[in-house]
Amino acid sequence: MNDSAHMCLEAALPQSRRRLANALRFLAIDAVEAAKSGHPGMPMGMADIAEVLWRDHLRHSPSDPSWPDRDRFVLSNGHGSMLLYAALHLSGYDLPLDELKRFRQLHAKTPGHPEVGLTPGVETTTGPLGQGLANGVGMAFAEKLLAARFNRAGFPIVDHHTYVFLGDGCLMEGVSHEAGSLAGTLGLGKLICFYDDNGISIDGHVSNWFTDDTAARFRAYGWNVIGPIDGHDALAVDAAIRDAHTNAKASGARPSLIVCRTTIGWGSPNKADTHDVHGAPLGADEIDATRRALDWDHPPFEIPDDVRANWSQRERGAARVREWNAMLEAYRVEYPDDAAEFERRMRGELPPDWPRITQQLVDVARDATGPTATRKSSQIALDVLVPELPELFGGSADLTGSNLTAVKASRRFVPGQAIDPHANYLSYGVREFGMMAIMNGMTLHGGFIPYGGTFLVFSDYARNAIRMSALMKQRVIHVLTHDSIGLGEDGPTHQPIEHLASLRLIPGLDVWRPCDTVETAIAWQMAIERANGPTSLVASRQNLPQATRDDTQMALVRRGGYVLSEATGGSPDVVIIATGSEVALALAAQRQLDEQGVCARVVSMPSTSVFDRQDAEYRAQVLPPGVRRVAVEAAHSDFWHKYVGPDGRVIGLASFGESAPAGELYAHFGVTVERVVEACV
Amino acid sequence: MNDSAHMCLEAALPQSRRRLANALRFLAIDAVEAAKSGHPGMPMGMADIAEVLWRDHLRHSPSDPSWPDRDRFVLSNGHGSMLLYAALHLSGYDLPLDELKRFRQLHAKTPGHPEVGLTPGVETTTGPLGQGLANGVGMAFAEKLLAARFNRAGFPIVDHHTYVFLGDGCLMEGVSHEAGSLAGTLGLGKLICFYDDNGISIDGHVSNWFTDDTAARFRAYGWNVIGPIDGHDALAVDAAIRDAHTNAKASGARPSLIVCRTTIGWGSPNKADTHDVHGAPLGADEIDATRRALDWDHPPFEIPDDVRANWSQRERGAARVREWNAMLEAYRVEYPDDAAEFERRMRGELPPDWPRITQQLVDVARDATGPTATRKSSQIALDVLVPELPELFGGSADLTGSNLTAVKASRRFVPGQAIDPHANYLSYGVREFGMMAIMNGMTLHGGFIPYGGTFLVFSDYARNAIRMSALMKQRVIHVLTHDSIGLGEDGPTHQPIEHLASLRLIPGLDVWRPCDTVETAIAWQMAIERANGPTSLVASRQNLPQATRDDTQMALVRRGGYVLSEATGGSPDVVIIATGSEVALALAAQRQLDEQGVCARVVSMPSTSVFDRQDAEYRAQVLPPGVRRVAVEAAHSDFWHKYVGPDGRVIGLASFGESAPAGELYAHFGVTVERVVEACV
Repeated sequence: MNDSAHMCLEAALPQSRRRLANALRFLAIDAVEAAKSGHPGMPMGMADIAEVLWRDHLRHSPSDPSWPDRDRFVLSNGHGSMLLYAALHLSGYDLPLDELKRFRQLHAKTPGHPEVGLTPGVETTTGPLGQGLANGVGMAFAEKLLAARFNRAGFPIVDHHTYVFLGDGCLMEGVSHEAGSLAGTLGLGKLICFYDDNGISIDGHVSNWFTDDTAARFRAYGWNVIGPIDGHDALAVDAAIRDAHTNAKASGARPSLIVCRTTIGWGSPNKADTHDVHGAPLGADEIDATRRALDWDHPPFEIPDDVRANWSQRERGAARVREWNAMLEAYRVEYPDDAAEFERRMRGELPPDWPRITQQLVDVARDATGPTATRKSSQIALDVLVPELPELFGGSADLTGSNLTAVKASRRFVPGQAIDPHANYLSYGVREFGMMAIMNGMTLHGGFIPYGGTFLVFSDYARNAIRMSALMKQRVIHVLTHDSIGLGEDGPTHQPIEHLASLRLIPGLDVWRPCDTVETAIAWQMAIERANGPTSLVASRQNLPQATRDDTQMALVRRGGYVLSEATGGSPDVVIIATGSEVALALAAQRQLDEQGVCARVVSMPSTSVFDRQDAEYRAQVLPPGVRRVAVEAAHSDFWHKYVGPDGRVIGLASFGESAPAGELYAHFGVTVERVVEACV
Repeated sequence: MNDSAHMCLEAALPQSRRRLANALRFLAIDAVEAAKSGHPGMPMGMADIAEVLWRDHLRHSPSDPSWPDRDRFVLSNGHGSMLLYAALHLSGYDLPLDELKRFRQLHAKTPGHPEVGLTPGVETTTGPLGQGLANGVGMAFAEKLLAARFNRAGFPIVDHHTYVFLGDGCLMEGVSHEAGSLAGTLGLGKLICFYDDNGISIDGHVSNWFTDDTAARFRAYGWNVIGPIDGHDALAVDAAIRDAHTNAKASGARPSLIVCRTTIGWGSPNKADTHDVHGAPLGADEIDATRRALDWDHPPFEIPDDVRANWSQRERGAARVREWNAMLEAYRVEYPDDAAEFERRMRGELPPDWPRITQQLVDVARDATGPTATRKSSQIALDVLVPELPELFGGSADLTGSNLTAVKASRRFVPGQAIDPHANYLSYGVREFGMMAIMNGMTLHGGFIPYGGTFLVFSDYARNAIRMSALMKQRVIHVLTHDSIGLGEDGPTHQPIEHLASLRLIPGLDVWRPCDTVETAIAWQMAIERANGPTSLVASRQNLPQATRDDTQMALVRRGGYVLSEATGGSPDVVIIATGSEVALALAAQRQLDEQGVCARVVSMPSTSVFDRQDAEYRAQVLPPGVRRVAVEAAHSDFWHKYVGPDGRVIGLASFGESAPAGELYAHFGVTVERVVEACV
């Protein structure tokens, strides 16, 4: 039976469809009850929509969850995770009933909120509201770019939709504006979102705090808005999806928002349409009442065979993959280079000549002479990398000329035109959070290593998306420039103080703050090679001198911290630890100390997390126990007590900055050679 | 001459108006040139709007910048700071020309971005885009609430507008959605915003990344949208403002957005309408060309006397204040209690019987027995405080039932009805960033001590608004609950790890993580007494036992860290430092250690910043030098090296959490009595 015949048959059986949807409802109800915690309301409200989408439209293959051309499904209202787990289970993913019974238990594949990498079929980690939508925008954008690059007449090897479920909470969050607005501008016609318009959020009926005309709002973004429809009417849902598909094929396609009027906790006789059903188990009595009301007489976690059979997508999914594989096989014959490149990119592998590229990268960096801002050094690195790595997709939150994220080989994505198949740069607009969350979506989709720039201080705006990139172990690169009071006149609103330290606290995030062009090049290399995690590259606005290194030191940069300049005689009285713009200051202090007969070693520590991962022996070589340490960084000093101890001296600052030329600020805040010297003697 | 006669006269003199606006333009051009940095484009583009607003509509008094009933003006696109400084200078504020000449220099009153508290007439610190709009929403909301509370027939003692200038950047930021949407729902008719629709942002013409129909978007929020008008046509601007005023008086008033089509850098023959003019000096040649083009033949920083005379608002402003003072005087006679209360609240003073209230607060807390979540303890404190402090205005970003921010005396603000004059609670919706930035606006307005709740992990979403509350030294209170892996099943997306440490890094922010009901009550007391800075109150989801304290210890809680349980014999072998939920664990470890003959002292450290501010002697009493220290906190361990040293033991975690019941997670991550004991022996 082909897909459309199947659909017609089902459409004729509304009663049976409701029963199939009820299977989702009761798996959610029973799992939340077993866990004694969780969110049954959303799964009960969106079950009918999910049934239509997952059984009749979603092109996926449960036995091959990493099939590159699968449709992507994002549960932006991630607290309704049981809806997703139930759909995955019934569709035939490797998510057995036992896992559903262990909902929200340690090491189960069914955590409280969906986590990518843990559960087959989960495409992104959601829960922090609104970001799922932005991830979906990134996925749909990646699809559009890859389709333009790789598809050939008769070979639509990249041709899939991105579906997003979202709720009132997602739509109240600011990031929904950033992502929604940009998606409209980018014309992402294959992005199809279902708004669970149930009028309830945790504080109650939303009429006192959320009265947007959401349809009008999304039309203002250039979206194709469908509905409102009855989200419990399978025929209406089906028609809306077909409408969205038709729109996606039109020229000038726009993303679709299907506004679905639903009842939270649908089916619960006493709790439907109340916030009580949002985030707590129904309780035994109400579950009994719901079973009776919905005529569902199966015990907890029992799904009748006919329901299972009707849900399974294993055969149809496998057939889809076979068909696609056959197409890819023919494509390989016809376009062998493109095929190899497509497969390499989707695997996330670097090009085979990566060693040559990195050699070139380092050579170019070594040739740099004269004072250079590390944001410029970053651009020098990108000038080597961008032409060689088509998967590098750059951008900036409206600070391209300041972040220096664009290079000669950057080709801007221009919406509303025939797409440049080699477009590799986007001006994201002033949307830091949206940008970082969209970048997460692009890397989750596959085929891209996204990097995006903003000022370090505005990492605040994007902070939870940076956290999510770390939690999801995704290779995204945040280019964060203007990294200290050294940015000067823009003043305290723009001068990061606590940001370096607070980014270093995010588990799994590597932060690099290089001191010159060589360290910047190696930081870029490390960031790109780091397939399983994000990197924040922190760069100066102001010029910094180039340090000198021998080959051994060159190799040690990769270890995150190393002896950049040994004490005279090799036996230090004191070790000065510095990063970025303060390395030159440390070196100057070392020279003065030398004249005073104090032997100081200078350790450059561009990445503390990378240094921390080195073996104890190496770390003790760099920071010998028992030798006094002084740290210098034009940022919050508290962080460095980890290395210098509670009574060790840190030359930094713990107050906000000021508006003035950079040089004056360094003097004003006492981040000076003199103070380093003073701390060392 | 009364205000409206003056307006009519000016309206008949368009050429003269342009000249008055050009005075703003050239002050901005010349100051940016002198500073060799800054943003001339926006001031040149919005000068005509500013001239009409500041000279003919803004009700202020330059000689009395803290007049309670002044109109509030917010420059949300704060990079155009010279527009504001020029308008303040010409209006007659205490901001002499010398300060304009020292634009962006150390200790000048004219920093790169406007800073409240530094420059008379600056109402809020702006620069981080979008937040100024949210501040304006908070100010307009405060005005509405105070008017409902204090105005009487014939005595409109609170009756002013809030005006906001904003640009494309503000409107791309997500926070503009959160604030704009809520302002529409709240019906803030006296909020009047001017959108500088110049089609340019830093990356260039916005058509490739910002294609919203902004007017339609704000209509979808329920705003009164006026225009687009020609932002260089004084008559059109004047008519639009009158239109907005009329709307503000209507029943069911809505906030107004005046869409002003402008040319960035208007007047510059070669750089207008390009992003080159956004953020860099024009340069000597282009300045000459602009002087010629605008027929402005005065040297830099010279303003003709007639222009000065036409700009000055000193007399009219003083007359307004006199008139208002007379009204207040009569109000004092008629409504002495209300007048006293109004003046007390606007001064930011606590009630005269504050000592009695705090005594009651502490007494109630001492009476608490049995395990209590500190979020519940916070509610117990609020139950005492809210009825006594009408200025306490609470809310939550849609987590009222979880944050426990509402109490019996909380009266919800319900939009679209006659306003409850005693409303003191708002459901902000799922808008963490908007909420915190609106709270900043409320406290900047005066009359309120706002507090608002969300989960600690979602402080990420609001992070820059929290930073801004600290930078602006504002008394706002962030109630951040569900403070560790102790929240359990919701899993790693909801479990804060790095957040405690990273909030503690924000300069000027006090973070409290109390261990029981007494510490929570005192944290609330300290937060409310802290007139010049914000406080984050961090609370547990799970129940915590009540500690026992004598009177001395009770008093010491206020010092941020104190000896909660002395080692047997008084001479500790080891000091265990703990916060919040881990204090009980430390006490249990102490008992076990005692059995093993190890004398351990337990220090409860609810606020590290407050402890750090104590004198050295006290700190050394609590943490005696030379005695080994172990820290325990179910959060990122790096932070604690500041207290225990690089090799000191910290029982915490540096990885993301997991989804499971809380108890299992503590065991899984090794935050246990056993591991504390092990670390101490």
